[in-house]
Amino acid sequence: MKKVIIASTSTLHGSSYLEYLLPSLKLHFKDCKNLLFIPYARPGGISHDEYTAKASEAFAKINISVKGIHEFENPETAIKNAEGIFTGGGNTFLLVSQLYKNNMMQLLSETVKNGTPYLGTSAGSNICGLSMQTTNDMPIVYPPSFQTLGLISFNLNPHYLDPEEKSTHMGETREERIKEFHAFNTIPVLGLREGSWLEVKGEKITLKGNLSARLFLKNQLPTELAPESDLGNLK
Amino acid sequence: MKKVIIASTSTLHGSSYLEYLLPSLKLHFKDCKNLLFIPYARPGGISHDEYTAKASEAFAKINISVKGIHEFENPETAIKNAEGIFTGGGNTFLLVSQLYKNNMMQLLSETVKNGTPYLGTSAGSNICGLSMQTTNDMPIVYPPSFQTLGLISFNLNPHYLDPEEKSTHMGETREERIKEFHAFNTIPVLGLREGSWLEVKGEKITLKGNLSARLFLKNQLPTELAPESDLGNLK
Repeated sequence: MKKVIIASTSTLHGSSYLEYLLPSLKLHFKDCKNLLFIPYARPGGISHDEYTAKASEAFAKINISVKGIHEFENPETAIKNAEGIFTGGGNTFLLVSQLYKNNMMQLLSETVKNGTPYLGTSAGSNICGLSMQTTNDMPIVYPPSFQTLGLISFNLNPHYLDPEEKSTHMGETREERIKEFHAFNTIPVLGLREGSWLEVKGEKITLKGNLSARLFLKNQLPTELAPESDLGNLK
Repeated sequence: MKKVIIASTSTLHGSSYLEYLLPSLKLHFKDCKNLLFIPYARPGGISHDEYTAKASEAFAKINISVKGIHEFENPETAIKNAEGIFTGGGNTFLLVSQLYKNNMMQLLSETVKNGTPYLGTSAGSNICGLSMQTTNDMPIVYPPSFQTLGLISFNLNPHYLDPEEKSTHMGETREERIKEFHAFNTIPVLGLREGSWLEVKGEKITLKGNLSARLFLKNQLPTELAPESDLGNLK
């Protein structure tokens, strides 16, 4: 059975890395002693080793050890043998490029669909949708495709931001950008605010956290979904 | 001689379309009675005809008539014969895709480099740089390349936004995104605030408007450039 947690952000303002998710992660990864970490989204600043250490530190609190995929001689085998997988945030264009370059996109998708528990945060969540086309990130590298894992039948906009009422800035709001996406695409888009996550168990998809999420469908006005909403039929 | 105006935004909050630029545009296009308008960036909302009408209305105030490139049977000839060219804003991924699809990227670049006066706003400014990789837009379509017109030897970030000091949002700031770009690219990036524009005359590039602009170079701290700064040597 597919078991996926798709989080808007790794970190809430004022709390530590993954802190707010740890109670859920303890249940989600209850059969795992070791996690495979995919640090590919990180565009510098810290190394893959340092990023992996950061994930290790958080998961140590729930007695799970973490090893970065870059530490394995054969990353494909690492994915196939993983007890659980976590893809961290960063830049989605970079993450998607790296997954294609290392020939992992399809393998990762199949592995998670076959039941290996998965956690994505931010860019690691973006790739759970059908395409990365509703990312907020800057196109710092050119990926061979915008198609992603397709673990769910819609797209995500992590770190969703409501428009600021008093703004005098003329750049597009997040809502306007998603509307632009729907001028050329029919895929539903879920705006996940920081503090929200999706829990996927087989075909069941539940909105978690205390906040509502904003659902965008082509040619329809956006709607707000309450926590615990079931998104299993959204496609 | 190359004659280009590259504006952060078409519209300032509280004023009408192109209003703040009209005195400069009157000089810039002083030898033009007719302008060719490229509306390709517009991702729906209004049609190419309606977008062209909006540009026409603004340019009528300085006695220049405007015709959309979509109205021409042969768009290549339209570019070659244009007295002046204006590319409006919208979505840069869409604009770049359309320019490649219609086989216009190289022709437009050559035409402007050969002296046809050009105005870009927002997405129409983004394409003046070496690549569109510092756009703020959402990747709603997949372009065949991120390379753009290369009218100047650096990249632009239009609608540049300073970080909000009191923000609790965990998404990347504009400055952080540009730093990510520099993890993989050496091209300088100029953050152009709304109300700023570049005036390119041959090899001379001058920052115009009342605001400073923020310059990002790989592995260096960002700096502020005062109005009237000369960017001709930036590469």
